[in-house]
Amino acid sequence: MQLLTPSLIFVGYIHMSELQTAAPLFNTVALIGIGLIGSSIARAARVRGTLACRVVANARTSATLNRVRELGIADTCELAPEDAVADADCVILCTPVGAFASVAESIGPHLKPGAIVTDVGSTKQSAIRDILPHLPENVHLVPGHPMAGTEFSGPDAGFSDLFEGRWTLLTPPPGTNPEAIAKMKEFWKRCGAMVSVMDPGHHDRVVAIVSHLPHLIAFTICGTADDLADETRQEVLQFAASGFRDFTRIAASDPVMWRDIFLNNRDALLEMLARFTEDTQAMARAVRWGDAAYIEDKVHRGRKIRQALIDLKQA
Amino acid sequence: MQLLTPSLIFVGYIHMSELQTAAPLFNTVALIGIGLIGSSIARAARVRGTLACRVVANARTSATLNRVRELGIADTCELAPEDAVADADCVILCTPVGAFASVAESIGPHLKPGAIVTDVGSTKQSAIRDILPHLPENVHLVPGHPMAGTEFSGPDAGFSDLFEGRWTLLTPPPGTNPEAIAKMKEFWKRCGAMVSVMDPGHHDRVVAIVSHLPHLIAFTICGTADDLADETRQEVLQFAASGFRDFTRIAASDPVMWRDIFLNNRDALLEMLARFTEDTQAMARAVRWGDAAYIEDKVHRGRKIRQALIDLKQA
Repeated sequence: MQLLTPSLIFVGYIHMSELQTAAPLFNTVALIGIGLIGSSIARAARVRGTLACRVVANARTSATLNRVRELGIADTCELAPEDAVADADCVILCTPVGAFASVAESIGPHLKPGAIVTDVGSTKQSAIRDILPHLPENVHLVPGHPMAGTEFSGPDAGFSDLFEGRWTLLTPPPGTNPEAIAKMKEFWKRCGAMVSVMDPGHHDRVVAIVSHLPHLIAFTICGTADDLADETRQEVLQFAASGFRDFTRIAASDPVMWRDIFLNNRDALLEMLARFTEDTQAMARAVRWGDAAYIEDKVHRGRKIRQALIDLKQA
Repeated sequence: MQLLTPSLIFVGYIHMSELQTAAPLFNTVALIGIGLIGSSIARAARVRGTLACRVVANARTSATLNRVRELGIADTCELAPEDAVADADCVILCTPVGAFASVAESIGPHLKPGAIVTDVGSTKQSAIRDILPHLPENVHLVPGHPMAGTEFSGPDAGFSDLFEGRWTLLTPPPGTNPEAIAKMKEFWKRCGAMVSVMDPGHHDRVVAIVSHLPHLIAFTICGTADDLADETRQEVLQFAASGFRDFTRIAASDPVMWRDIFLNNRDALLEMLARFTEDTQAMARAVRWGDAAYIEDKVHRGRKIRQALIDLKQA
């Protein structure tokens, strides 16, 4: 009888990455809103196992929560936001930004001392304006903006790799607890994202030009085409070339989300639109008067910027 | 001694498509300009074998022609356009549209009676204006616009499948010989394209909104971003999101080609830009005054048009 026979049992391949061996960052994460971004965070938590021991999902309708149950991407579903946050160490607002004030008002009195409140909205000054006044003193606000997404929405649209290799920008207000900031940095890194911390106002200007203005333009040109006389409009669809076709892809986004973004980044968006409009008018003048050198120079600049993006591996 | 032994020699797989068994449509095709589009036609002629018995290439510089010789995509290279067209049944202008008048003037007296002259430019009223006056009576002008391309240029950028499944629009002036039109239809079908015949002025309005205006916008917004203060500009590159990133891809196009397109579709482009500018100003007003319903409606229209494109398989 041999008691000490060494034995080797093959239990499958274990991926020994640093992340998967780390202890979960939070006990309970509550997701208020579980669309494309919220459900991607939920799935990342499931797949990676290092974000949270428990994920609580909240949605406006029981239909959405039933779908979340079917998908099996959350541990608990709560229809009332105040119930969802009661036990949470980290609360992530994943609703359109226009709902932040009312959500913050509902959950404020129910937040656990020491909890971190964050969000995934595209406008950061408005997030601070709408959330901060409703939070108790002992709760930390670390607003965030994962720059990832697709043109699809709802809990079925999410996937666990959505944030992989993409930037998440954190915009904590002055005086925010450094440990809370460090924890949210780590959270997004564990989601696969690259993280940068910046001033909320600066953030809003940068995204106004890289994201909000391009979307405003794309929505608008679709309307301009749709207003053309019938015959032309039909042929616009039939012969949609590269250019217009790419714009329609950008334009196929969630109406409520984008309405809220435009209304909540008003000043930066209007400033960037005013600059852009001046520049299109200068281009129109060059076209009207045949200023070939001006036009060529502008096209050259487009190429140069494209090249800079390729060099930065952002293209 | 057996003289009549049957023998089977394997000479490779023969693709018995209808096209490849048809006789070549033209004896000699001359390509004036051999960049992305011209070299793609040359390659299609090589691969398909049913377009022309012989392809003659012309370019402005002997460096380009030497490259064409290295690539082996033409049967003959001629540095003088008049030599290139001397024996051609079909002459295809593949230069930027701004060069059409001077090319037509050079080749006009050297064209073979009964030859077809066509082009691949994106502006069709200007093509007729610039080419037709230089053609002898017994030569047929059938302007064409293959709606295909990439952001790359030059004879190395072409490929034989470029036109596969894409539209080519033909815009013959009133009174054009129907046989010449039928022959150019067949030519583009044999290149793999879908073909539609339309009025030149109507063509110019349709492409102004589906292609020229989106390019003007893309070039412009790159300049707007490039003019921002240093700190913001760097972050525009670093955090380039979907939207701006897509615009830079559109903007990475050939400067001379686009300069010529803008200058030669001036009226339609300025009209579409004026309509678009009115619409952006209406959107700006809605953003400034918080007109949520207006913004939502515009985003909905963008989605609707995207869906219409998907239904038409153009997306």
